[in-house]
Amino acid sequence: MGATEIKKRRTISVPLGEALNRVLADAITANEDLPRADRSAVDGYAIRAQDTFGASQFKPRTLTLTERRIVSGRCAKRLWTGNPLPRGADAVVMLENVKQVDGKIEVLVPPAPGENVSKKGEDLMKGTVAARAGIRLKPQHLGVIAALGIGDVPVFEQPKIAVFSTGNEVTEVGAERKKDQVFDANRHVISALCRELGAIPVDLGIARDDFGEIREKLMKGLELDATISTGGTSVGGLDLVPEVIDELGKPGIVVHGIAMRPAMPTALAVVDKKPIMIFPGNPVAAMIAFEVFARPLICRMLGLNQEETRPTLTARITRRIATSLGRRTFVRVRVFQREGEHLADPISAKGSGVISTMTKSNGYTIVPENREGLEDGELVLVHLFDAIEEG
Amino acid sequence: MGATEIKKRRTISVPLGEALNRVLADAITANEDLPRADRSAVDGYAIRAQDTFGASQFKPRTLTLTERRIVSGRCAKRLWTGNPLPRGADAVVMLENVKQVDGKIEVLVPPAPGENVSKKGEDLMKGTVAARAGIRLKPQHLGVIAALGIGDVPVFEQPKIAVFSTGNEVTEVGAERKKDQVFDANRHVISALCRELGAIPVDLGIARDDFGEIREKLMKGLELDATISTGGTSVGGLDLVPEVIDELGKPGIVVHGIAMRPAMPTALAVVDKKPIMIFPGNPVAAMIAFEVFARPLICRMLGLNQEETRPTLTARITRRIATSLGRRTFVRVRVFQREGEHLADPISAKGSGVISTMTKSNGYTIVPENREGLEDGELVLVHLFDAIEEG
Repeated sequence: MGATEIKKRRTISVPLGEALNRVLADAITANEDLPRADRSAVDGYAIRAQDTFGASQFKPRTLTLTERRIVSGRCAKRLWTGNPLPRGADAVVMLENVKQVDGKIEVLVPPAPGENVSKKGEDLMKGTVAARAGIRLKPQHLGVIAALGIGDVPVFEQPKIAVFSTGNEVTEVGAERKKDQVFDANRHVISALCRELGAIPVDLGIARDDFGEIREKLMKGLELDATISTGGTSVGGLDLVPEVIDELGKPGIVVHGIAMRPAMPTALAVVDKKPIMIFPGNPVAAMIAFEVFARPLICRMLGLNQEETRPTLTARITRRIATSLGRRTFVRVRVFQREGEHLADPISAKGSGVISTMTKSNGYTIVPENREGLEDGELVLVHLFDAIEEG
Repeated sequence: MGATEIKKRRTISVPLGEALNRVLADAITANEDLPRADRSAVDGYAIRAQDTFGASQFKPRTLTLTERRIVSGRCAKRLWTGNPLPRGADAVVMLENVKQVDGKIEVLVPPAPGENVSKKGEDLMKGTVAARAGIRLKPQHLGVIAALGIGDVPVFEQPKIAVFSTGNEVTEVGAERKKDQVFDANRHVISALCRELGAIPVDLGIARDDFGEIREKLMKGLELDATISTGGTSVGGLDLVPEVIDELGKPGIVVHGIAMRPAMPTALAVVDKKPIMIFPGNPVAAMIAFEVFARPLICRMLGLNQEETRPTLTARITRRIATSLGRRTFVRVRVFQREGEHLADPISAKGSGVISTMTKSNGYTIVPENREGLEDGELVLVHLFDAIEEG
């Protein structure tokens, strides 16, 4: 989308219980020391360390139990993990290093001063950043925010992405299907990919190959944050979507046709500062186009301070494959483990419309445009979109 | 949970649009060939391959365009990707290999028979399994299911996990807090971890250190599929939760105290065939206990045919660390990349209650019980629970 500005993100406040996977809009700063006071890190007895110096299994030191502060040099207080240290104490002796005799304890292993004590502010000092803006909130972040007593979390509003398919040959899953029509898989794949990232897909249905219908969908999309359509992009083909876009506003189509395979006929447009991505109708091409173009854009729209990429690993390709010079080729592979090594079987299929290859494969590797393929046994970087199964 | 049986999973049907990340309960079998008929894999012209044999840039073969089937040996029909092949055609010549002259085309590069044609059943043959039972449904699986025209998907019901915290020292985020009380972080972390896996956490709140209150929470938990509590597990401490459980039913507590660090005081129980996991009150220990005990159990309850583990990678530890012999130690680390290598900084903290170390770290490594630590520079396997940032 280059120099074109994208609509400013809005910040909203959600309860902690709904903040999982949302993107933090403002840094969370500790509003107090954590812990608020010195406290025990173990189950044991609070003591003054110097009172037990020199104690051992053979020469235990006896201390009297108290319920209050450690006043004299010869008393101890029972504590559980997390309990605040009583005044006068500076260490905690662990349960297992103590022998209990009624009303008293015998310390067998003396703690050093400060031992088993969580110091005030040790976890988080007041004023320090506990969670940075732009991160995706994982369970552990919610834990830190909860520990600070913060119940409402500032997060970015989720971008709403209009999703529609085009083509007379495409029909709704569940609808009556004419001869030569196919069920619309793309809308489901693209919507799910949006949802996985944390955007909200808005289903605009199917537009027939009709200027007016496509225009109506695109107009609705302009009310949202971005639009993804599939189908109707063939360079030199019907090509209705780009045609409609160029009538809708400026700058319109920015790119049309990309030196990649699959998804060569992808078009990218901007109208009224709203990005529009027009992906090919082939399900595999549409999914690759999403990975390459929509994923980084949506990550940015979400407010993430770092693009979320697929996990990658290095694997050995199991057979030679040929690709075309001058085109960046996305080769689907099935990665599996054998004898401790990761191997990648290229999943071949004629055309890019072979959707079952997306479920047979669990990742893809990229053959650069200056190469004509991959050698048998070559090590490649695989981008994983599903789990690796036992080989 | 060993030999104890877990409640049978129930299958429900959800619309395709709600099936993302759910676990497929029954295999999806292709109810027809996909594609249903031979169709074009590219934009181009359907022809009979033998009509263009020998054609070249210098000796193009001229064909007449038709809107119907390829009758004679000298006609072609315009097709877009996905269009069914007209009768008589056996190949598609790509647009770029053709020169258009009105009403006619000149074929410059002849296709082989079958070239650029997706054969009937090539993608999925009727009767073959398109998606196996027990997989988590990813966008690409939804694509295959949609392509088969299946709008309702059989998935397993999500397990409901009761989650509560115990302890007089714990108070609700947002509530008034007494001196020496801490906000309850664990319930938020555990609930979010359940939700991440696709289980439904049911928040039962906080039980004070009171037999009756704990009993009430546990009884409510028995109406659900499993229970996770945090706090109140110290071996030799207050130990109320295990005490209540042993009055609730058989077999009751199965394990109490595990040779690991943190989370040593973890207890595992089964009552009325329902698993109950009692994790320590320290947030870090509770999270590690979840990873080790709750994650595999919940994966099984979800109906997954393979446990979903955290992604792992090999990293070089950046300094020597000491652990105790006889205890399996879970060391939090921060993995980062430097000069193409993954390094793992151990994140140290006294005690396991130091929750900020969970957000400073992005993974953990396991030091086995027969070792006393890790050497500086040693290669270790890291289980990642957050992204790796630029180093």
